[in-house]
Amino acid sequence: MNSGKTINYKMEISYDGTRYYGWERQPDRDTIQGKLESVLTVLNGSFVEVTGAGRTDAGVHARKMTANARLETNLSPDEIKAYMNRYLPDDISINRLVIASDRFHARYNAVGKLYTYTCYIGDEKPVFDRKFVTVLDFKPDIEAMRQAAVFLVGTHDYKAFCSNPKMKKSTVRYVDQIEILTKKDRLYLNFHGTGFLQNMVRIMTGTLLEVGAGNMEPGRVREILEGLDRREAGPTAPAKGLCLMKVDY
Amino acid sequence: MNSGKTINYKMEISYDGTRYYGWERQPDRDTIQGKLESVLTVLNGSFVEVTGAGRTDAGVHARKMTANARLETNLSPDEIKAYMNRYLPDDISINRLVIASDRFHARYNAVGKLYTYTCYIGDEKPVFDRKFVTVLDFKPDIEAMRQAAVFLVGTHDYKAFCSNPKMKKSTVRYVDQIEILTKKDRLYLNFHGTGFLQNMVRIMTGTLLEVGAGNMEPGRVREILEGLDRREAGPTAPAKGLCLMKVDY
Repeated sequence: MNSGKTINYKMEISYDGTRYYGWERQPDRDTIQGKLESVLTVLNGSFVEVTGAGRTDAGVHARKMTANARLETNLSPDEIKAYMNRYLPDDISINRLVIASDRFHARYNAVGKLYTYTCYIGDEKPVFDRKFVTVLDFKPDIEAMRQAAVFLVGTHDYKAFCSNPKMKKSTVRYVDQIEILTKKDRLYLNFHGTGFLQNMVRIMTGTLLEVGAGNMEPGRVREILEGLDRREAGPTAPAKGLCLMKVDY
Repeated sequence: MNSGKTINYKMEISYDGTRYYGWERQPDRDTIQGKLESVLTVLNGSFVEVTGAGRTDAGVHARKMTANARLETNLSPDEIKAYMNRYLPDDISINRLVIASDRFHARYNAVGKLYTYTCYIGDEKPVFDRKFVTVLDFKPDIEAMRQAAVFLVGTHDYKAFCSNPKMKKSTVRYVDQIEILTKKDRLYLNFHGTGFLQNMVRIMTGTLLEVGAGNMEPGRVREILEGLDRREAGPTAPAKGLCLMKVDY
């Protein structure tokens, strides 16, 4: 795979994750990595592995997932991109594809990620983007959510916000920004950090929404963080409201 | 149905028309009118007819369709609206519901309609709104389209732009504005008029896109209009790019 003839490509990918079982390749299920690999394997004539910046869960979307793959082809980057967009389904788009340095690794070299969680807080029904937002049946207390979010920023052990109880590696992560804002009838929660644990953004969102609904005091979030117990945090917010916005290198 | 106890309600409706066989009620198929009538009939306890401002084709969307219906209920308008939104599927929303004068008729009283046809003209794929845009595989000549659109504005016999060859009533209509604009990687065609014939907006769009693709001179559109022959006009543009934006009263 790493022979003299292969070239390492970097690509930026958008996808509507609604009908996929997440990013990671699975034997009999549609996944984003699986779709990308099958299209590139046909192009290449032999198996191509696509390495993503991270894994998104089933039903989670991406506007700018980044990945790399090594190919042996005479096509130009623009031709590879056009080929992929032609053979990929409508809900996956390659937005950019360039030659990367041979050492570029989409996961190891990623230094930051931005996720946005979107909620609908209006009085109607979000008919046109209903697959990309979570509908709230209450008017959230934004100020309380912002107060609570402050406790989640920094370098912490986020074990209470991880859905994998058997996680053996470190659960310490660095989250440098959590921004909570409203625009018209949408509530956006932006999470930026160097990396996130399994379901971490969705559990942080579910917990902040408990605060926004008045079911939890903002200060309680600090205790939950320090308690390292997943059962104390809020529910995992639905996948469809979550979108990977970009990966920093 | 028009007994002393009934009240006439006016409602504004958004829908994603993707999975519907259009507005008009049909025996064994999902339609927007059919869905609205079945929810209101349960609420009312007897059959309720919903009168729309017009009929949209299968696959066409609406941001502000207007309709009226007569109900015999003790619920307030806000309660009726909440009931409808609860029992209607996710892809139909009642955005406004108010008591109307007893004589209000959504079709007869409509004095204007605005339709927008949206095309995607970027180099990527419109992953998130792919069900609401038509992807063009060429860069349209906007100026040529605008020149051609001038011929379609005014009071004319639009027989060449009507898909119903057996139309017995008048095919004369008044179109007061056709606006063609681009914003980022979207092309918008806005059509405002007092009323439109069957498929008229989609055939005008298909014809203007022929001009935009360089397959037809702008002046040819005038000849097509004057020729009154559907076969001379361009193809009917796909339903999914079309949306009824508002109805004027």
